[in-house]
Parts: sequence; C-alpha cells; structure tokens
Amino acid sequence: MRILTAGESHGECLSAIIEGFPKGVRIEQDFIDQELKRRMSGVGRGRRMAIESDKAEIVSGLRNKITLGSPITILVRNKDVKIFSQNKDELPILSIPRPAHADLSGALKYNESDIRNILERASARETASRVCAGAVCKQFLLNFNIDIASFTVGVGSVISDVKPKTVSEIKTKVKSSQLNSIDPKKEKLMISEIKKIEEEKDSLGGIIEIWIEGMPVGIGSFMDYKARLDAKLAYYLMGIPAVKSVEVGLGFNYGKARGSVSHDEIYYSKTKGFYRESNNSGGIEGGISTGEPIVLRIAMKPIATLRRPLNSVNLITKKAEKAIVERSDTCAIAACAVIAENMAAIAVMESFLDKFGSDTLSEIKTAYRAYAKNLDNL
Amino acid sequence: MRILTAGESHGECLSAIIEGFPKGVRIEQDFIDQELKRRMSGVGRGRRMAIESDKAEIVSGLRNKITLGSPITILVRNKDVKIFSQNKDELPILSIPRPAHADLSGALKYNESDIRNILERASARETASRVCAGAVCKQFLLNFNIDIASFTVGVGSVISDVKPKTVSEIKTKVKSSQLNSIDPKKEKLMISEIKKIEEEKDSLGGIIEIWIEGMPVGIGSFMDYKARLDAKLAYYLMGIPAVKSVEVGLGFNYGKARGSVSHDEIYYSKTKGFYRESNNSGGIEGGISTGEPIVLRIAMKPIATLRRPLNSVNLITKKAEKAIVERSDTCAIAACAVIAENMAAIAVMESFLDKFGSDTLSEIKTAYRAYAKNLDNL
Amino acid sequence: MRILTAGESHGECLSAIIEGFPKGVRIEQDFIDQELKRRMSGVGRGRRMAIESDKAEIVSGLRNKITLGSPITILVRNKDVKIFSQNKDELPILSIPRPAHADLSGALKYNESDIRNILERASARETASRVCAGAVCKQFLLNFNIDIASFTVGVGSVISDVKPKTVSEIKTKVKSSQLNSIDPKKEKLMISEIKKIEEEKDSLGGIIEIWIEGMPVGIGSFMDYKARLDAKLAYYLMGIPAVKSVEVGLGFNYGKARGSVSHDEIYYSKTKGFYRESNNSGGIEGGISTGEPIVLRIAMKPIATLRRPLNSVNLITKKAEKAIVERSDTCAIAACAVIAENMAAIAVMESFLDKFGSDTLSEIKTAYRAYAKNLDNL
Amino acid sequence: MRILTAGESHGECLSAIIEGFPKGVRIEQDFIDQELKRRMSGVGRGRRMAIESDKAEIVSGLRNKITLGSPITILVRNKDVKIFSQNKDELPILSIPRPAHADLSGALKYNESDIRNILERASARETASRVCAGAVCKQFLLNFNIDIASFTVGVGSVISDVKPKTVSEIKTKVKSSQLNSIDPKKEKLMISEIKKIEEEKDSLGGIIEIWIEGMPVGIGSFMDYKARLDAKLAYYLMGIPAVKSVEVGLGFNYGKARGSVSHDEIYYSKTKGFYRESNNSGGIEGGISTGEPIVLRIAMKPIATLRRPLNSVNLITKKAEKAIVERSDTCAIAACAVIAENMAAIAVMESFLDKFGSDTLSEIKTAYRAYAKNLDNL
Repeated sequence: MRILTAGESHGECLSAIIEGFPKGVRIEQDFIDQELKRRMSGVGRGRRMAIESDKAEIVSGLRNKITLGSPITILVRNKDVKIFSQNKDELPILSIPRPAHADLSGALKYNESDIRNILERASARETASRVCAGAVCKQFLLNFNIDIASFTVGVGSVISDVKPKTVSEIKTKVKSSQLNSIDPKKEKLMISEIKKIEEEKDSLGGIIEIWIEGMPVGIGSFMDYKARLDAKLAYYLMGIPAVKSVEVGLGFNYGKARGSVSHDEIYYSKTKGFYRESNNSGGIEGGISTGEPIVLRIAMKPIATLRRPLNSVNLITKKAEKAIVERSDTCAIAACAVIAENMAAIAVMESFLDKFGSDTLSEIKTAYRAYAKNLDNL
Repeated sequence: MRILTAGESHGECLSAIIEGFPKGVRIEQDFIDQELKRRMSGVGRGRRMAIESDKAEIVSGLRNKITLGSPITILVRNKDVKIFSQNKDELPILSIPRPAHADLSGALKYNESDIRNILERASARETASRVCAGAVCKQFLLNFNIDIASFTVGVGSVISDVKPKTVSEIKTKVKSSQLNSIDPKKEKLMISEIKKIEEEKDSLGGIIEIWIEGMPVGIGSFMDYKARLDAKLAYYLMGIPAVKSVEVGLGFNYGKARGSVSHDEIYYSKTKGFYRESNNSGGIEGGISTGEPIVLRIAMKPIATLRRPLNSVNLITKKAEKAIVERSDTCAIAACAVIAENMAAIAVMESFLDKFGSDTLSEIKTAYRAYAKNLDNL
Repeated sequence: MRILTAGESHGECLSAIIEGFPKGVRIEQDFIDQELKRRMSGVGRGRRMAIESDKAEIVSGLRNKITLGSPITILVRNKDVKIFSQNKDELPILSIPRPAHADLSGALKYNESDIRNILERASARETASRVCAGAVCKQFLLNFNIDIASFTVGVGSVISDVKPKTVSEIKTKVKSSQLNSIDPKKEKLMISEIKKIEEEKDSLGGIIEIWIEGMPVGIGSFMDYKARLDAKLAYYLMGIPAVKSVEVGLGFNYGKARGSVSHDEIYYSKTKGFYRESNNSGGIEGGISTGEPIVLRIAMKPIATLRRPLNSVNLITKKAEKAIVERSDTCAIAACAVIAENMAAIAVMESFLDKFGSDTLSEIKTAYRAYAKNLDNL
Repeated sequence: MRILTAGESHGECLSAIIEGFPKGVRIEQDFIDQELKRRMSGVGRGRRMAIESDKAEIVSGLRNKITLGSPITILVRNKDVKIFSQNKDELPILSIPRPAHADLSGALKYNESDIRNILERASARETASRVCAGAVCKQFLLNFNIDIASFTVGVGSVISDVKPKTVSEIKTKVKSSQLNSIDPKKEKLMISEIKKIEEEKDSLGGIIEIWIEGMPVGIGSFMDYKARLDAKLAYYLMGIPAVKSVEVGLGFNYGKARGSVSHDEIYYSKTKGFYRESNNSGGIEGGISTGEPIVLRIAMKPIATLRRPLNSVNLITKKAEKAIVERSDTCAIAACAVIAENMAAIAVMESFLDKFGSDTLSEIKTAYRAYAKNLDNL
C-alpha cells in the first residue's frame, strides 16, 4: 500500500491516492466525513473551522461502496479558496515568519521571500487528506476487529491520570467530551485553561494517548529496522505537524525503571492462551505486536500562530517586526488526536498487509484465520 | 541511499550494504572500528562484549580508502560463532521466552517452538552492522562539518541536568566517562546504581540525548509526510531495540507549555544572519532543519534478559517456568547512545542527499556551497 | 519523485499525484491538454474518443502556473460516467472475457465473475492520467532542452524505413500526419490497411520509435541494477498496455551483429567534445546516457477487443461463446506513441533528478551548469 | 523482498543481501554454485573464467540450510583480486575508453580520468552476485513448481527455429550443449561462428529465450503501472549489461500481426479449466500471468571489448588511440542466459510474494492452496 497526499491550505482541494488497497472492502463515505468532522472540532479551534465543512469525495477505486482493488482517490474541496483563483499580485506578500512554523526555514530552503508559498503546504490543513486516507484504513481494520481510539491526557498544566481499559470505553467517554477527554473533571479545567489562554492571545499544546485494540500478535518485524512496528508508528506520528514526542507504553518512564518491575511477565491459560497481566510494553516487544492493546503517547507543541505575535524579522527589510498573524486556533489537541488515530491506522494497516497479503479482503481473511488457528493450536 | 543489514547474533558475520553512497568520500576503517569499540563499551556490559572485538572489513565500494560510488559492503565477523557451524540437534532447544524480548511474539509470529530461531536476529547484536553503516555516513557528514554526539542523561533514578553547549563539548566530556556522561558527579551515582542492580541480578535502562551540529537550514521537507526530518529521525531511533520514546527539543514538555514562552523567536544580525536565542524546537520546525543544533532525546527500557529471571511459560509444555537466561548486559545505555548517533547519521544523510544530489562528493559540495551562498545573499 | 495514478474507465475521473516535483517550474495546462488531445487522435480510433474531450484540471501544486514544490494533483473528468453513478444491478454483468485483455486472468486473480470490475481499471483509459503526469515532466525537461518525440514505424504489414535526424524534424513531420508518421508515402498505406482491417472488424498493432534529445551524458547508473536508465525506460514502456517489446538503439538486431561493426567508435573534436559517428547504442551505454539521442522502439499488439469477436468461454456457464464487444478502437498506434513519449519523460526525469537534486528548478540548473562546465573542461 | 548487490570486478568479493525472504525455505549452496558455474561456462568465454571458480558463501539468514526469515547475505570471493590490495599508483591508469562499454560515459559522469574507477563496477562481473540472489529465489519458486529455463536462439547470423514445449525439455537439451542450445545442428554453426569471430579478434552477441513454467494465473497487477509483471520482467532483464531488447511472447512481431490471428482464444474443459491453444501472449495479458508458460526473448549486443580494438580517444591527451583491451570474452551468450533466468526469478518471486504474503513458506503455501482451490471451484 502506497499513499500520496496533496493540496494547499487555500488551494482548490486536498487530495489523496491510496494504491494497493485490497479489493472487496466496504468503504462508507460517511465514516470518512465523520472523521473529518471530528478533526475540525474541539474547544480551542479558530475561524477556519467554522468556514470549512469538509466532505470527502471518493472519485475512484469504489463501485457501489466496495473497493475494486484499484487506487482510491479522495478529494476534499476547500471552501476558502483564496489565492489560487486570484491574481498573485493582488495578494499581499507575507514576509514576516512565525516562530515555530515552517515559515522561516521553508523560506530559506526554497529561497523564497513570500512566505505564502511556504505556508500553503506546510499548513496543518493538509492533514485533512491524511485523515481521509486513514479513515479508509480504519474501515479495513474493522473487518479484523482492529479498532483505534484516542483521548486527551493533558492540556497545558492540566494532566489527567484516568486510565481506560478498552477502546470501546474510550470511544464512549470521548463522545460526550468537547476535548476528546475521558476525564470529565479534568476536561473542565482544560477548557478553562484554553479559554484563559485564548483571552491572553497565547496558544497551547497537549498530550494524547492512542490505543489500538485487536491487533494480533506478530505484526511488524525485527528482521529489518524499517519493518519494526514501533518504528513505523513513530515515523507516522512524529510526521504530524506540531508533534514533538512519541512514546510507546511506559515510554520515557522506562528509562527510569528497572527490568524486574517494568517488564510484562508471561502467563498462560487454556482460555486466553499466552497473556500478560501488565502492558508496560504498550503492546510491542522486539518491534512486533504482542497481541495486547498498542498504547502510544504523543506530545503536541502549542500552536505556532499567536494572536499576540512573537518577535520576528522581516525577510526583505531584515528589520525586527512582530510575526504575521494567520487565522489560527488556540489549541488543536482534539484535532491532533484524530490525525494521530488515522496516521496510526495507516501504519498498522501497512504492517498488517505485510503479513497477510493484499489482493482481496477475502484472501486476507483466509490468511488471517489460518494464522489465528495456528496460534490456537500452538 | 539504500541500506540493508544482515546477520545473526551467533552466525558467521554481520553485514551491511550501502547503495547510492556518493563517490569521492574518504572512509577510514579505523573510524568505524572506533565506533564499534564505543558500542561495546560502558559500565554494565556483559561477557559477550569481552569475547568480541569487532572489526569492520570493507570488502567493496572503496579504492584506496576513497568511495567509488558503488555499493559499500561491510562485514563484522562474529568470534562467538556457535550454532551455525554445529549440528542443530546438538544444541538445546530454547523454549521459555523472556518477557520484554521478541521471544514470545516472534515465536508466535513464525510458529516456532525453538526461540533460538527468533532471538538470533532479534538480538541487539545486529546493531553492530547499523553502526558500521552509520559510521560511514558520519564520515560523509564531516565533510560538511555536520557532527554528531550524544550523552547519557539518566540511568534508573539518577538524572543529570547538565546541559551542553556544543557537540565538541559533549565529545570532550564523554571521552573521560565510563558511561558516555558529561556530568562526572551524576556519573558516579549512575555507576553505583548499575553495580547495585547488577548485584541484584536486575537490569536498567536510561535516557540519552543526541546532538547533531552543523546541519544547514532547510533539510527535510513538509511536502510529504514521509520526508519530514523529525519523522525520519523518529523512525530510525524508535527502530533501535529497547528504545521506547523519542523526543525532539522540548519534546514531551511542549505538551505542557504555552506558545509565548516555548517558541523560539526570530532575530537577525549581519554577522549571524537569522538566528534564535533559544532552541526549544530542537533544531526542527515544520519538519525541516532550522540551522540550530538538532537535539533529540530517547528513552531505553531496561535490558530484557535478567539473571534473576522473570515469570514465563514453556512454549512446549505450557507450564509456568522462569525465563531463559542468555548471557546479557545489566545496562547498555552507552552502547545504545552510539547506535542512536549512527542511526541519526543515516537519517540525516538521507535527507541531506535529497537536497544536494548524490553522485559525487564534489558535486554535492558545489550544490551545498551555491545554496549557502544564496542564504548569505538573502 | 513519486507518482500515483488512479481512475476507472467509466468512473468519475482519472487522477494523478506527482510528489517530489521541483519548485519553480512553469506548467501550462494547455500543454497537458494538447498531449491529451494527441492521445485521443489518430486514424483507427473508436467512438469513446468522440465522446471524451479530455481536459486536465490541476488542483494542487501550482500557484499562478508555477510549481510550489508541493505534490501536483491532476484530474481528468470522464464524460462517459456510467456505472458508478448508477445502481450496479441495473447494469448487465459481463461474463465472457476477451482474449488478449486482462479479462480472464483478472477475473481469476480476483475471483470475480463480473468482468466489469476488472476491465474498468485494466482499460487503457487509465493512460490518460499517465499522460498528464508525463506532460508535466516534459515541461520540466524542456528547461534543459530535453525534448521527446515519436513516430510510427509500422502498422500491420507496412513498415517505414525513413530515419529522422532530430526530434524537431520528427515533430514537424508528424504534425501533418494522421498517424504520427514521418513517412507520408507509407502513411497512406498504413491508413489503407487500418481501414481495411476496420471493415473486417479485426484489429492491428504497430511499431513506434521514440527519440529523446538533449539528455546530457551520464544520466542513469550502473551502480545498482535498478538505477540503469535503459532498465527504467524498459520498465515504464513495457508497462504500457499492449506493449510487448522494447528495444534500445539497434535492439534486437544487436543480437545478430558483430562488435567491430555495431559499436559506436569514439571521436573527439574541440568544438563537439567527445562524439560518435553512429548511434547504434541508442544513446545508452553501460546503463547511462551517452549524450547522443536516446532511441527506443516498442511494438504494440493489436487491440484486444474485436468487433468480430474471438472464441471465449462464459465465466459462469462455462459454455463456449463469443467474447464481449466493448466499444473499442481498430488501431491505437498514434495514441500509444503519445503514452510512450510521456512514460519515457517520467523515466528520464526521475534519473535526471537523481543526479541533479530536486528541490528547486533554480538549484537544479546550478548543478546542471556546474556539471556541464566540468564536462567542457575535461 | 528487497535485494542489494555489491562488489567490484577485482575487489575482494561480490556480495548480495536479500531482505524480506520468507522463513522456512531450504536453500542448497550447491544449487547456487551450480548456477555460478553455468554463468562461467559456454563457448566464447575468456581467460577470467578460467581463473575464477566462483563459490557462494552464505554468511547469514540460514540455520542448517533453512531460511530464518532474516536477511540472507551471500559472498563470492574474487580470486583475481588485483587493485584493491595494492597501491593505486603502482597500477597503470586506464585512459582510453572502449566503445559500447560504460567507460566513456561513466568517466564523464564521475569526472574521472582513470577508467578503472568506472569499469570495476560496470563490469559484468557484478552479475555473479545477481545470480546468487536469483538462485536463492529459484529455490523458493521450486516449492511451487515454478521452474525457469532458457536457451540460445541465435548467435550472430545463426538463428535456430526449434521451439521447445516445456521447461523440462529445455533443461534436458541444454545440458548436452556447450552453448545453452536446444538445437544441436545450429549449435555447431554457432560455435563455428564464434571461433571464426574469435580468430578475427571481434565479438558477438546473440538472442536468448527464457521460459517460466508453473506460474499460477493472476500474478502481477494492472492496478499500478509499476506492478505489471511484464514491466517488472522488462526492468530486470533490460538491466542486464549488454541486453538491448526485451520481448514478451510474440513480441516485436505482434506489431505486424492482426488481432484475429494473434490473440490467444479462450477454451474450457473440466480437466484443464480455462486454457488456450496458443501462447502468443507469452503468458502475460493485461500485466498479469495467464497461467501459460511465460516466454521472454532478449537480445544481447556483442561484447564491448575487442582484441582488435576500436577507435577511441585518450581521455587525458584527447588524441585518437585504439581502445584499451581488458581481458574479455568473444561471446557470452550462455552466461547471459543464466543471468537472465536468475533476474527473471527475482522479478517473478517479488510479484508472487505480493499476492501470497512473505512471512513463512508455510503461510505462503496455505494462501497459495486456498487460491488454487478457489480457481478450481470457479
């Protein structure tokens, strides 16, 4: 499976092509739209989200909702199409880069003095097409009861220590949250913090936990360093704009622990087969899945655009000035969580197909069942 | 540039092929051997390291120490070649998996009851070939004054808060350390902790910081999520056995911070060009290098093999038993740091070549200088 | 540069994403449309071509016609959108495969009894998106005076032995041809042959020669077998539906020749530098370009769909029946030539970027000029 | 499956790493050595072949002859190790390029005046490592009764029109041939022609046909142009040094034929299932296998090095001189055939794994059988 995404923040549309997707998978456009809607929601979002109401258009790869095995093309039209339909000269040149965004490094990389030519693609708007691709993968994975959810662990100084037990518990709880939280008490504090920060024209990041349930044991590989499941998940999660930290299971705290208390001992029962009583590994040992839930944690830095702008320098005059203020969010933690779930879905599906083939859902199910049966017989 | 590594822990040799490496680069075998030696050192290492004295043999790709542009093959002979030169049946079957290692998940993945067939490749011994490949990349990068170093931030409960200023400072300080530390006081405590844990037949992990200095601004790309420099670094670092967390710059703590105090404001002076007074971004914004040092932090989990073994289950009898005890280390934090430096070197070189071409060092230098000159003229 | 294409023959649209395309290249949509029009033309085409009037819509990657360095998305709407907007059950199931098409093997591969689910993607209609991608690459290459043309060498029993000298000669001559021919006399015979075959409800293939002019010496590589320029060209040309033979230079006849008369001897003059007086190599020696025109020849098999259908078997009843008759062409040699030019453009551009980098046109020009200057100094 | 090869003609050794090869496959080193020996044989070979007696050393990836699923490393030591163990300055600089070899274009590409730095890798000696990799793939394929053979169709002016029926027929007949021929009468003429040419210090190429038997229907894909089986075969075959033409089935002659007589009509019988009475398609339609034998034809140009050397130019003095004379063959058609078989094996195995997964032979067999059973039930 190979995926390319495309599209500028104010261009005509965002797009994605997914090549090598199995034949015979039912794909609901509503499911994708629901993910796109989740991506646009959450306390702390700015005006752009009020303008857009993203809809996925699937223009290839399906017949009557069933995948054909051919490449799937998904488009998301931008409503706020500004610059590409107008004459460039009528648009003001943006020349004062925002710290923490790609503005300055991008302008230098491309020897460009109009930052618009950088930020249009560097904008997190492009993640809408990743969510489309991920939402297609999620639907594939559900055929194998592999389900993914996420929740907000922290925003600014507020950290929740509520731990879920299952993906379905997470899904139920976040449904009634404005911030993808499973901890109603802390959520209130988080929202207060966001409102306060919003008034101060400042911005916030946060911490997200992602759960992947139902992964069979043995997905990923230690045979080549590029095939490790944890490596691939880190690749795709760290590739989300603003994500600066990725952890698996106990993560950072593993560095402080000793083996005897942090490793997940192995047990066996006739009904469960091999199992663990803890999941510090986050469901991955030796680069492959253990069969326990995969648990990942990412940290998102505060939004780069502040309405009370930071110190910067005009690229043309070289004079100190305040950074440009593009319309933006105060905190996009709930959106980031949706993107993370969907990037995780892509990573996990790629490794899953590596093991079970990729021509048709029916053949993959045959391979999966034969493998599962072998596990039982072991 | 494409790299494959190979080799089992007790097979005849470890190997690596590096394809697409530029012509005209001087490669010293001594440099590689030095890295291999660093990888074998550090307090807390076990007996295997006393047996091996790894030497890199470069058997293709060089003529008189200069790369030809052809694929580079590097071999590292194992001295401790056990199983592959003997008859299988004479070797005892290993059937009690160690928690935290690939043993159980690997055995299930491959439907294998002799864990030796899993652990031979899953063993961290394979990182010797990665270090060989990385040490070749490091030598390329030094042509552009891109230099990489690392230091131990923490081991178990001991955390150092000494912050270095430069790579050369790190290099000088760790030279006189037994644990790749730049904080002699804390190093003593770390060593004590390791000794104590060793006596208790337990194991430890730790925290490492990696610095990459001299990277020009603009390496990596936000155009495709797979091309982001932070994503690629996370990919290769999380792909190191036992690494469970990767952070860039402020990392996890970004999730708790607000934008106004955590973003690196932009300044300009005639002598320095654009610069920052802080480096919370860890030298990467929008997926591309800022020109500031790249700062990464990883956490390593404790060694999986304990001499006071953990609870496990015999794969064949399904009876509860204590895990097998392969000869192992108590703490391999110094080794992990060397591996991390070298994996980072591979990631960084790949992105560097993406920008400047890859046929010959001389052409890359031309492209690099033209780019640098443009930056100056901006 | 990575390209994905998508789209079914009667789906909503065809699409392509080109990722890794350099910034700063002027792309004219008219140029693409012109190639699409050429692809639809030529004596021997069927009714579909009368229905469609393909237009490329570029919906990402450009601002005011200049590439941004971001992925380029190109859409081509199908006018003849049948099945995907209707209910499947209203459409008759196709169950009698056409020999020479993907129908039977595809149905077996995907365990599918409705051949429509196979032929929608296997149809040569998908080559419209390849032409879009190639036409973008052609425009890049023209910045380096790399120009590509093709002409029909043979159709059925008629073979032309007119040899061109330059790409511009080819371009001029084929302009006034209905069959992409540079030999007006033989063209008449070819057209007669096509008309006759059309009356007989039969089909024809043909032979095409492709010229690529302006390639500097040294593109491609013998360092890895996947990097050879001839190999890559063969890959992309043999990947065109109906193409069954690819030759470089003297091609097949090299097998019958002796070295002393077939190899291109080397000469030198101050004005020309190194040069050859013959070009039997077709501009490629040792997997890399020689600087002479690259000359390729492909053979296309006759169209698979015959209006006087061939023997086949009903997939469901297993009874012998005549193959289905999808609307089709009699001979598509002129279309195939356009597709071949554009696939060659993609191959050549990929190898070109391998040598000169890919961030911006301006940087590529710098690298190219420095290389050219070195060649002159040699 | 990913393969890298390495090694210079007179370097220490040739090497290959095969990553992603399934676990559980029995690999005989003798089989590889046999292929290496076949590669060195045939009338028309030069003195180098008398010096070398290639042996494959498998130094990773196997335990007791069974693959572990880990990367397989294969080394072939050069006996004739000249330059890399000596001081460069003692070796004469080669500065007069041979037409038809990579010498001139390579020297220009790499701005190199000592052609030795080019020809060491560009030499066909490197194909020994490809043969090693291919011979491993061949052994995998035999588990599915996929067998590959080849025979010499023509050498110089002598063309055989004997057509085989099966791979086993080819194998039997070529065994008693000195030139990989299945036509003893024509073989004599070919040998005479080679001897004559040898006396004249000239060189010859030839034409080879490759058969792949036992491929199930449905391998390869028309979903993406890079996944087509014929495209991939052309890629790997045209990537063999000296190969200038690749044809599938009727190949070039398809261009002259009409559909009604050249397409392979479809029949069905209870015992055979769907079948054809002709195989003009060469076993591939729509980019995927039909289940009939895959038939490929390649043309090899004459050896580039002539003992009566061609006109050339001294790279340093720019004076006209006769090309250098590296020890070489007169005709290497039999060697080329072995290389072609093995490159075809790699291509075919890659596409085969795409359909059936790649973790273990046992799982691949399960997937294969389930697919075969479905075909029977259709």
